[in-house]
Amino acid sequence: MNEKQIKQLLEDVQHGDSTIDDAMHTLRDLPYEDLGHTKIDHHRALRNGFPEVIYGAGKTPDQVAEIFAAMMTRGNVLVTRVDDAIATAVQAICPDVEYNPLGRTLVHRHTAVEYQSGKVLIVTAGTSDLAVAEEARTTADILGNPAELISDVGVAGIHRIFGSVAQMRDAAVVIVVAGMEGALASVVGGMIDRPVIAVPTSVGYGAAFQGIAALLGMLTSCASGISVVNIDNGFGAACAANRINRLAGAAD
Amino acid sequence: MNEKQIKQLLEDVQHGDSTIDDAMHTLRDLPYEDLGHTKIDHHRALRNGFPEVIYGAGKTPDQVAEIFAAMMTRGNVLVTRVDDAIATAVQAICPDVEYNPLGRTLVHRHTAVEYQSGKVLIVTAGTSDLAVAEEARTTADILGNPAELISDVGVAGIHRIFGSVAQMRDAAVVIVVAGMEGALASVVGGMIDRPVIAVPTSVGYGAAFQGIAALLGMLTSCASGISVVNIDNGFGAACAANRINRLAGAAD
Amino acid sequence: MNEKQIKQLLEDVQHGDSTIDDAMHTLRDLPYEDLGHTKIDHHRALRNGFPEVIYGAGKTPDQVAEIFAAMMTRGNVLVTRVDDAIATAVQAICPDVEYNPLGRTLVHRHTAVEYQSGKVLIVTAGTSDLAVAEEARTTADILGNPAELISDVGVAGIHRIFGSVAQMRDAAVVIVVAGMEGALASVVGGMIDRPVIAVPTSVGYGAAFQGIAALLGMLTSCASGISVVNIDNGFGAACAANRINRLAGAAD
Amino acid sequence: MNEKQIKQLLEDVQHGDSTIDDAMHTLRDLPYEDLGHTKIDHHRALRNGFPEVIYGAGKTPDQVAEIFAAMMTRGNVLVTRVDDAIATAVQAICPDVEYNPLGRTLVHRHTAVEYQSGKVLIVTAGTSDLAVAEEARTTADILGNPAELISDVGVAGIHRIFGSVAQMRDAAVVIVVAGMEGALASVVGGMIDRPVIAVPTSVGYGAAFQGIAALLGMLTSCASGISVVNIDNGFGAACAANRINRLAGAAD
Amino acid sequence: MNEKQIKQLLEDVQHGDSTIDDAMHTLRDLPYEDLGHTKIDHHRALRNGFPEVIYGAGKTPDQVAEIFAAMMTRGNVLVTRVDDAIATAVQAICPDVEYNPLGRTLVHRHTAVEYQSGKVLIVTAGTSDLAVAEEARTTADILGNPAELISDVGVAGIHRIFGSVAQMRDAAVVIVVAGMEGALASVVGGMIDRPVIAVPTSVGYGAAFQGIAALLGMLTSCASGISVVNIDNGFGAACAANRINRLAGAAD
Amino acid sequence: MNEKQIKQLLEDVQHGDSTIDDAMHTLRDLPYEDLGHTKIDHHRALRNGFPEVIYGAGKTPDQVAEIFAAMMTRGNVLVTRVDDAIATAVQAICPDVEYNPLGRTLVHRHTAVEYQSGKVLIVTAGTSDLAVAEEARTTADILGNPAELISDVGVAGIHRIFGSVAQMRDAAVVIVVAGMEGALASVVGGMIDRPVIAVPTSVGYGAAFQGIAALLGMLTSCASGISVVNIDNGFGAACAANRINRLAGAAD
Amino acid sequence: MNEKQIKQLLEDVQHGDSTIDDAMHTLRDLPYEDLGHTKIDHHRALRNGFPEVIYGAGKTPDQVAEIFAAMMTRGNVLVTRVDDAIATAVQAICPDVEYNPLGRTLVHRHTAVEYQSGKVLIVTAGTSDLAVAEEARTTADILGNPAELISDVGVAGIHRIFGSVAQMRDAAVVIVVAGMEGALASVVGGMIDRPVIAVPTSVGYGAAFQGIAALLGMLTSCASGISVVNIDNGFGAACAANRINRLAGAAD
Amino acid sequence: MNEKQIKQLLEDVQHGDSTIDDAMHTLRDLPYEDLGHTKIDHHRALRNGFPEVIYGAGKTPDQVAEIFAAMMTRGNVLVTRVDDAIATAVQAICPDVEYNPLGRTLVHRHTAVEYQSGKVLIVTAGTSDLAVAEEARTTADILGNPAELISDVGVAGIHRIFGSVAQMRDAAVVIVVAGMEGALASVVGGMIDRPVIAVPTSVGYGAAFQGIAALLGMLTSCASGISVVNIDNGFGAACAANRINRLAGAAD
Repeated sequence: MNEKQIKQLLEDVQHGDSTIDDAMHTLRDLPYEDLGHTKIDHHRALRNGFPEVIYGAGKTPDQVAEIFAAMMTRGNVLVTRVDDAIATAVQAICPDVEYNPLGRTLVHRHTAVEYQSGKVLIVTAGTSDLAVAEEARTTADILGNPAELISDVGVAGIHRIFGSVAQMRDAAVVIVVAGMEGALASVVGGMIDRPVIAVPTSVGYGAAFQGIAALLGMLTSCASGISVVNIDNGFGAACAANRINRLAGAAD
Repeated sequence: MNEKQIKQLLEDVQHGDSTIDDAMHTLRDLPYEDLGHTKIDHHRALRNGFPEVIYGAGKTPDQVAEIFAAMMTRGNVLVTRVDDAIATAVQAICPDVEYNPLGRTLVHRHTAVEYQSGKVLIVTAGTSDLAVAEEARTTADILGNPAELISDVGVAGIHRIFGSVAQMRDAAVVIVVAGMEGALASVVGGMIDRPVIAVPTSVGYGAAFQGIAALLGMLTSCASGISVVNIDNGFGAACAANRINRLAGAAD
Repeated sequence: MNEKQIKQLLEDVQHGDSTIDDAMHTLRDLPYEDLGHTKIDHHRALRNGFPEVIYGAGKTPDQVAEIFAAMMTRGNVLVTRVDDAIATAVQAICPDVEYNPLGRTLVHRHTAVEYQSGKVLIVTAGTSDLAVAEEARTTADILGNPAELISDVGVAGIHRIFGSVAQMRDAAVVIVVAGMEGALASVVGGMIDRPVIAVPTSVGYGAAFQGIAALLGMLTSCASGISVVNIDNGFGAACAANRINRLAGAAD
Repeated sequence: MNEKQIKQLLEDVQHGDSTIDDAMHTLRDLPYEDLGHTKIDHHRALRNGFPEVIYGAGKTPDQVAEIFAAMMTRGNVLVTRVDDAIATAVQAICPDVEYNPLGRTLVHRHTAVEYQSGKVLIVTAGTSDLAVAEEARTTADILGNPAELISDVGVAGIHRIFGSVAQMRDAAVVIVVAGMEGALASVVGGMIDRPVIAVPTSVGYGAAFQGIAALLGMLTSCASGISVVNIDNGFGAACAANRINRLAGAAD
Repeated sequence: MNEKQIKQLLEDVQHGDSTIDDAMHTLRDLPYEDLGHTKIDHHRALRNGFPEVIYGAGKTPDQVAEIFAAMMTRGNVLVTRVDDAIATAVQAICPDVEYNPLGRTLVHRHTAVEYQSGKVLIVTAGTSDLAVAEEARTTADILGNPAELISDVGVAGIHRIFGSVAQMRDAAVVIVVAGMEGALASVVGGMIDRPVIAVPTSVGYGAAFQGIAALLGMLTSCASGISVVNIDNGFGAACAANRINRLAGAAD
Repeated sequence: MNEKQIKQLLEDVQHGDSTIDDAMHTLRDLPYEDLGHTKIDHHRALRNGFPEVIYGAGKTPDQVAEIFAAMMTRGNVLVTRVDDAIATAVQAICPDVEYNPLGRTLVHRHTAVEYQSGKVLIVTAGTSDLAVAEEARTTADILGNPAELISDVGVAGIHRIFGSVAQMRDAAVVIVVAGMEGALASVVGGMIDRPVIAVPTSVGYGAAFQGIAALLGMLTSCASGISVVNIDNGFGAACAANRINRLAGAAD
Repeated sequence: MNEKQIKQLLEDVQHGDSTIDDAMHTLRDLPYEDLGHTKIDHHRALRNGFPEVIYGAGKTPDQVAEIFAAMMTRGNVLVTRVDDAIATAVQAICPDVEYNPLGRTLVHRHTAVEYQSGKVLIVTAGTSDLAVAEEARTTADILGNPAELISDVGVAGIHRIFGSVAQMRDAAVVIVVAGMEGALASVVGGMIDRPVIAVPTSVGYGAAFQGIAALLGMLTSCASGISVVNIDNGFGAACAANRINRLAGAAD
Repeated sequence: MNEKQIKQLLEDVQHGDSTIDDAMHTLRDLPYEDLGHTKIDHHRALRNGFPEVIYGAGKTPDQVAEIFAAMMTRGNVLVTRVDDAIATAVQAICPDVEYNPLGRTLVHRHTAVEYQSGKVLIVTAGTSDLAVAEEARTTADILGNPAELISDVGVAGIHRIFGSVAQMRDAAVVIVVAGMEGALASVVGGMIDRPVIAVPTSVGYGAAFQGIAALLGMLTSCASGISVVNIDNGFGAACAANRINRLAGAAD
């Protein structure tokens, strides 16, 4: 039931073409959020170039290409968790799609992205965390957040992080990407007052347990006010950063 | 090594009372952040009434009272995880301390809190989640965030949440507090674009595993951009919300 | 927003006291399910004596008594997870409330329960599972299901279960309550074709891990079509049985 | 020992060809359930076309084909967890077998299925849950339950589920298939009074832990009366639904 | 249905007082194992004084005393997991019951135990494992196995175990009781060829995880042919030893 | 230090070629068990054809073949956890080696096995458990235990096990091999008095957790006196059965 | 068998009072390590005042006092995991015993401790870790290691640790005691080249899981060469430090 | 900011080219450890041949070769967790690199290693633990520690370890490498007083849980003063041993 139908219903009541009881019966099953949410979605997409997102994992190259084809003429598109086969399939129908093999993303720019003024800074503990960081960076960018990346400033060489303090304090939001014990999140959280989103990664072996060690470490961080997303979820961290940066941007 | 000592050292160099080599030797062990961080801490406390925080768990009433006494004349004080015995001990030395037995907090207002314009809205799935929600509310308030609380809008009666959508969209940040399966975070995250911080609680039994079910549910939420704090960590959620709200406030 | 208010809104439109645009604005935030769900709740309560349920765990005796007092004049009331202190507090305001100390339930009968024709049979592996079984039995009864209980027919003495086969085949739904390895569910599920709901209990020690062994055993049962509820959740099992029995009853 | 042998034994006693002591010795080891259960199995198979089921996982294509060949002339056959190699092997001996590659099932219809009047509705949170849903749908169908499927109504877009409420209320049993946090089960369970069977899926990554997050979420659901089957167990959910639907059908 | 009733049934058939069809109907529901198993139980109890066992945990002193009273005139009785309150209640009705406060057992000797010739040797890693060892010792004894106990021969002082090698080789079965890392089982299993039953105990803290460390260590022992029982299950270990020792005794 | 060297040392003392102090110094570091254990090993191998065992997993075909070649002229050899490549490599040097591809074992018979009189009976819950059962059967056999195998008597069709009761009671030891919920161990343990060794298998999916469900179920079995070995450890179960059967045999 | 007995045996051989065969038979069962190890123990105790250690947990005050009384005249004694009741019982028999209620230790100095030259430095992340740190400090001291303690230098305020770098580099061994995410170990391990022993503590709540988060974090530390002891095991950390410090001391 | 820049800053102050306030402003952000740590790194590399380490896992052969090429002219290089492809790529640019396929390491010797006098002894429980032991051995060697290796002395044949006691007591540090139940660490820890570092390995199956059983066993060892590193972390164990051995060497 769309807005037009609701308007018609009210006009029917106004003109006596519907009894109040009948109208109430119809309204009782009104798909409330369906109406509003869809409308807002369209408005938002037109206004700020917010992309549609396709989660590539578990889909065949053909499936992703088919979905991509249906979306690429309507707006910007982001595909996450892609591999070379998916990239090839999409490139066949959209030659200038941007493929980031490290971050495993595909980006199609149909409309110019309107960027926020605040920056999203992504910091990694090690070079092995770069894949997750790249997913976050690409996502943050297409969502309209100027994104920067500092790599390999893990706490085993604590001095490395100090050279980046000014850059971190200059960002609107800092995303900390770390595997193993994930201690970088605590150190960064203790040094800056900006929102910090921690992404545990599955980097490590043995007692790292595919990211559990980092996840628990970040959740129990002694630095107050760090929040955490799922293991290897660079996309989710960027979405959370986008919510924050957009809020701050709206306050400008 | 404090500022005064560094100044002295530089004057010694300036006046020839110290060689450059000696000064360099001294500076090499300079406690870098100690200087800066402490100063910033003082400035911040003077500027925005940011309180000192005492974590009450595992401390005796006497210990808390002693720490509290040392702090209460310097600024606002927040004590978390207190029980009646701690409250009584602190009330003996500070009769007008605000005791929130449900949220297990003590608040001492030495300086007027300067509030942000953005609101922090705390939403709970059930009435049993109120203790954690109250800790979040009290913390958010003393950190300078106008805080509101909506209780008992869990997803088993999904209609209950719809009456609060406008209020949620009006907030700067929404904190979702839920135990059991923690599904409320996903539903809220899907309905609004504002930053959402999810707090799993230890409410539930059996396979709830003292909050693990809710924690995993929130981390794997199908709604993008939700971030999560530790189980029962209302304090941490409020600190994360404060980081965000302060950022947005600074952008005003 | 309740039915009366919606009716008023429609009358306002009908009478020209509200424009269609204003009405649409109001209706767009209409708490869709609130209207429908609440109404259905009332109808259902009037029709079949479905009780309100209070979860007693984590509430003080005074809190439970206060909620109970507000409900006891409106319909049947079930309180689960009560202890003697809660029972005493409720008995003070409702002397004829039925207290089941083993099942930790309180039942207030305001309206005569209309029973289904199908029976709910609860079977336990050991006598230590009786507390959970009693919670299930009391719940099933107040929801309108004739409930029977067979105790201590665990698989270590497999012959004990055979004497009850006819009784199990005569029931509409069988709830199997078992701790330790929970094997009884598989055996029962293999012997009868009726719906079987398995309740793992926290009975046992060591590798029973407070019900995890039984939970995993029931979830991986080699008997097809057994479904499982949370550990010690006799209440939930009875609710599931009630959904099934009511469906079958409606088909009469 | 079959019925005929028991009859012979009793005739031997009647005719004096066996002493009572000898007969007792024989009966003492009577495979009790073997007799009854087998007979019921045969009766049931003749009456309602209940199929034999082959679990394909861990079997070679040749093994499955051999078992299939032995069964295909006796009644309907369902094979679950098959891959292309198994399908090819079976198609070689039974060209018109129905292969569902998404649900990984093979179905052979030897006898017309007699369908129940009640419907089994399968609802999935995401498109990635479709494989499990298809296994449930195929199983429900061959067991004699009209089965319908609604896909991709996860709670992140809560409005999507509302368009399906009427369809859900029209079903006899609803199977909810969801990975990640599995919150859809709670939302559906709160909206309808019909039996709800929840199937956690291994869809998701990181803290989804191959379905543990969804499993725990469903077990601790705040909606009363939801029961749960093993992770990815679409077959088991359909079997549980069949038990319920058949009970309701028998009450017609 | 007991033996007498079956005999009557067969006589009825013999005498024409029952048709074969009626007899078959009755026999079809014959509680097969109930007959056999119960009989065997009685024979065994008369022959070897095998005791009835009451699991005391989770029962009130009154409940235990009531069960005990019903059993004490029929044969030997063993109660496990008792505390002082239970002991007092039982001593009130049976003053000469043997109370082992360390092993938390009560033993009533109604009939003289007939002992096997083979010995059961119980070996503990530390003095903290003695409670579990005592439960095993008492159980083994009342089941008719001469039991000996060697304490505190953990592997941290590997030389301590060597003084006991001859005693271990002289036993029919060795029960190894160990907490912490449980390594004693591997060492003993490597030194002797006799059956070794390992009992992990919950002794230890931190990563001992209430016996999980010892349990996993014993299950993965590099010494072949060690079998394991539940954490702290001295009773079960003695029952397993009794099965073995009785087998060996029967072979004498 | 071998026997010959010790003898030489004692002769040196006897002949005055060594002082007592020097001899004591040497003896103080005497590898105690090395002497005894090795000797016993040799005696045992000569007496009863006890084989050497090679664990094939994680070794290359060449490595296994090399070790096998060194052993095959000294006595019987058992290789476990082999694959086709290992089998081929060993067959090249020992053409008549017995390869059991299901049980993944290789057996070389250099000396006639002297069998015990007692039988080891292996019972499986499902056909998928046969690989583990075959490892147990082959191991039991080469260790000198007449081994029998009953397959697919899982508890979902409890009647299937009853036909095998007599066979189980006739065995010296029963090994129960079961995956999923592993309930068969409890049922068998309740029906017979003989030693029962339970082997959980990794058969199953989802909440079976690669054998954890079955492992926990067997450890917490309500049938007393069942002992358990590692997941999929058919070899270990047979070794434990061999210890028991050999004890019983020695008592003949 | 002690040294004297071995000497006698050798003299018997020398004097012809024993044949070589008889001597060999006796020596074959020689409790090798028992002789040597005990002797070494005595020598070590005399030489370096190494104390006997009593683990107080799970022992009654009377038991501890009895063991303490037997030891206090022979050398230094350390009791760990004591409470006030145990302390009182021991003080009754040894008034000048040193009771450390925070570290839960009792120390009796019978012989002057000979201290190593190297220092053991204990560093804690928070004040709540002090109990574990005190256990380590007391243990290190009585084992002969000069021990120092720096408290509350957790990584959330990373600058706090820098003031202690010189002190850390001056120590022979550094013990890092931290709960929550345990990140301090990584930071310290990255700053100094000395041996670092990490002690996870059970400080924290929720996802700290009683020390598991810190344990995993320390095991997966990105700083190379950190080793870890059990959760809350201050005693064990000091013993490990003592092994290292004594090695270094022996090299002086 | 490097040393040169600091020197320039101080000269500017000395010469009046910078005010003290400006200098203080600059120094306040001085990357303290960056300066010191980098310098120390260079000094250390020149002095003792400490190598650069590349972690090969998760890197492509080209990436490793590129990093290797950049390092090989500056000093010794160690690459861990390499496979044949990486080895081939590195050998192409450095033909005389030492490839250890079992330990999965590459070693390039640019400068002669200066060895410590103390030895590092690596002891394994089984031959399957050799890969981890080889990683430890190679690492220890290139770090300047004479390393020895004893293999296959697991506790199932406890006598095997006794022949190595003297060799263990002669070492400065002993690294114990063991999978399955990891009991060897406890036995070794009880026999010698030297520092013992335990490395759990992922050797084993089922309840070994990829090294968790060994990890927990080593953490809860009843032998005092054993410390533990991550599962399969031979590199880390050697680094810890190096810290200890270097400390002892410095004390010479």
